Amino acid sequence: MRRVVVIGGDAAGMSAAAQASRGAEPVELVVFEKGEYTSYAACGLPYLVGGVVADAGRLVARTPEQHRANGIDVRTGHEVTAIDVAGRTVEARSLADGHTLRQPFDDLVIATGAVPIRPPLPNIDTNGIAALHTIPDAVALDAAIRDRSPRRAVVVGGGYIGLEMVEALLRRGIAVTLVEKLDQPMATIDPDMGARVADGLRQLGVELRLGVGVAGFEPGADGWVRSVATDSGEIPADLVVLGLGVRPNSQLAADAGIPVGERGAIVTDARMATPVPGIWAAGDCAQSLHRVSQRPTWVALGTHANKQGRVVGLNVSGTEARFPGVIGTAVTKVEGVEIGRTGLSEREAAAADLDAVAEVIEGTSRAHYYPGGSSMAVKVLAERGSGRLLGAQIVGGAESAKRIDALAVAIWNGMTADDFAQLDLGYAPPFSPVWDTPLIAARRAGDEAR
Amino acid sequence: MRRVVVIGGDAAGMSAAAQASRGAEPVELVVFEKGEYTSYAACGLPYLVGGVVADAGRLVARTPEQHRANGIDVRTGHEVTAIDVAGRTVEARSLADGHTLRQPFDDLVIATGAVPIRPPLPNIDTNGIAALHTIPDAVALDAAIRDRSPRRAVVVGGGYIGLEMVEALLRRGIAVTLVEKLDQPMATIDPDMGARVADGLRQLGVELRLGVGVAGFEPGADGWVRSVATDSGEIPADLVVLGLGVRPNSQLAADAGIPVGERGAIVTDARMATPVPGIWAAGDCAQSLHRVSQRPTWVALGTHANKQGRVVGLNVSGTEARFPGVIGTAVTKVEGVEIGRTGLSEREAAAADLDAVAEVIEGTSRAHYYPGGSSMAVKVLAERGSGRLLGAQIVGGAESAKRIDALAVAIWNGMTADDFAQLDLGYAPPFSPVWDTPLIAARRAGDEAR
Repeated sequence: MRRVVVIGGDAAGMSAAAQASRGAEPVELVVFEKGEYTSYAACGLPYLVGGVVADAGRLVARTPEQHRANGIDVRTGHEVTAIDVAGRTVEARSLADGHTLRQPFDDLVIATGAVPIRPPLPNIDTNGIAALHTIPDAVALDAAIRDRSPRRAVVVGGGYIGLEMVEALLRRGIAVTLVEKLDQPMATIDPDMGARVADGLRQLGVELRLGVGVAGFEPGADGWVRSVATDSGEIPADLVVLGLGVRPNSQLAADAGIPVGERGAIVTDARMATPVPGIWAAGDCAQSLHRVSQRPTWVALGTHANKQGRVVGLNVSGTEARFPGVIGTAVTKVEGVEIGRTGLSEREAAAADLDAVAEVIEGTSRAHYYPGGSSMAVKVLAERGSGRLLGAQIVGGAESAKRIDALAVAIWNGMTADDFAQLDLGYAPPFSPVWDTPLIAARRAGDEAR
Repeated sequence: MRRVVVIGGDAAGMSAAAQASRGAEPVELVVFEKGEYTSYAACGLPYLVGGVVADAGRLVARTPEQHRANGIDVRTGHEVTAIDVAGRTVEARSLADGHTLRQPFDDLVIATGAVPIRPPLPNIDTNGIAALHTIPDAVALDAAIRDRSPRRAVVVGGGYIGLEMVEALLRRGIAVTLVEKLDQPMATIDPDMGARVADGLRQLGVELRLGVGVAGFEPGADGWVRSVATDSGEIPADLVVLGLGVRPNSQLAADAGIPVGERGAIVTDARMATPVPGIWAAGDCAQSLHRVSQRPTWVALGTHANKQGRVVGLNVSGTEARFPGVIGTAVTKVEGVEIGRTGLSEREAAAADLDAVAEVIEGTSRAHYYPGGSSMAVKVLAERGSGRLLGAQIVGGAESAKRIDALAVAIWNGMTADDFAQLDLGYAPPFSPVWDTPLIAARRAGDEAR
């Protein structure tokens, strides 16, 4: 029986293993996971800290025991320390007893995920400076908040995790300052849309320090963080959360000579195969194709991890499967402020040598006369000349962000802005105006592109 | 200057006129409207009755005066009584003074809308039996509820208007019995999904009488309705609302020899031109192409009326435009019960000689661990063999129905169920599970179609 070894027991790795365990051809499955949990929702960690999710167990979709019951040999507390490509083995070390073992494989699935970026700033290892990557991280942060009742927190970095942590800390009754070295939060959307997010954050009482770089951290007498040093002064803080993004956890692969791309993600083809035969990669450690730019990209997101894992699981168990790529769709929210984006931003379009026009339209989530709707701004980017949709962004209140999906499906299919404006989307007064804002934005972008 | 005459001053007619008034070529615009309002949201009438919308004026997007300020000669209170195709004139009668005039045209836009179906049942004209089609209808019904404080209402017909009126009457504190001659409410969705709507209605306290035909109405001593006679007994009622659907208001066109199709809607091509040169039709009186079945269809819906009107307005003012057709997307809700549908139902697929497989998946609107989500059932239909998506239906709680849009865009583009399952849609725990229910339903339907 074919031996499939998986490195990493979260979304991508366990999706691959679970799919392979019920594949067309029987395989022997061994999964090495460094931590104690499998198949947990990393995306849920901010909500655990915010008290929205009551306990960590809720985030675990499937435990190691449940996977074992399905015939998958899951070895938690085991860190893979080396891949021997020529010898077709991996070396794994038990974190419990330090014992090292060598596991042969026919197919190897690398699903090592991503690691939080932690710059070498002075005193970054001071107590009270947290990054949120694993369930133990979230449990420790929750405990620190409970034990020390911090009054003032600084969140460093205004991306997805940063914003979700802003919400979590606000919900814990902590005053939050957000420090971001760029001039806007959410660098994945354009500056004009980022400014709307900034306004929303200010209305939630968040103090924004944009265009401010962090220089280091100052510990107090008790050894816990006391303030954040920045290039424009000191900010007092009882707690600091680092939301500086993640990078692919690809050192193990790189050390074994498996090619990694520009941003450090493992190079894959549409089958999620690396250039090394029989070695696959999936999830936050792997590259994907961006369908709009037609260039390799790297997006660390649970949906892709699950889908890529499934594709690998099919491929190693006798069913050919392909991952068709990504278009950069993402949604998030901070209390009542929703954010959605898909396709390319203006900066990304320029980087891909695409000539983009853009239109921003403001509208409401419901018919103007139907109460309870919220306002939103929808930005649509189209290619000059062809009118092809390149990207879209939404910032608004409740019921706004998921409207990005219709635009995502359109971009996926290469629709023009004009064609989008003619779509037959669901309309009724409690759900949208008769001309929903994305349709109007697309119509204007189509006119502009001509 | 080219003379464009429009019959009907609501969504389609005024969209045509407004678009033509700012067209590439200047035109002279005359609009005849029988009533006193223009550009009002007929879709908002149930919410006016329900007290959700405070006053009728809120439903008017643009008044006759506002249109006149844009150079459109709007003649309210004028009913067009005949179209002289050969003579290129229409005959219109002032409802105020009975005066008849003859108006010449170069282009004629027929936007006469739809009329409620009102079967010739015994005593159907009794006081307290209402159909909801115009603002005066809604104002009169609201007044009747205020004056007479009905305790028990019967809604006849379980389609969109019927269900929206159920909600409106419940909100007014009236006990509602819904009588529907079919075995399910919402005949535009399949019986299995209709059963879920029925369950939701029962949970709202609505008494359902399914498979029951109305035979007539019984007036009380005061001349107001007292009960509804059915083929399975009498149902006491202080108020009756007819929600039996609408039919195209196409008699005027038919009398003039303009072709109408099977369901009585005016035949049009993709430019919304009738077979008679220079005569156009738009909105609830006009046929459209169904993009999935590739057959003519008729859908009376404000979104189509607006888009078709715009297309006609462009075509009569020097810019060629096409209406690309419909795919039958619709959403509605009754309190917390949301309903969405797009494409073909199983019955419609069979009628179009398409061999459909179907899968129904139950899921939640948010990640399983994120509180406040609601449950939903998603049904996906795919063509056996090709796997092409044919239709989809959703019945669920809050945040469910508008998920139909992603499926609608996919169906519009001819995607397969397999391809849909791989889409990059917006994911974050407050917005959807990592595998959103439509993706799973599509994946299963794709498997089933093979």
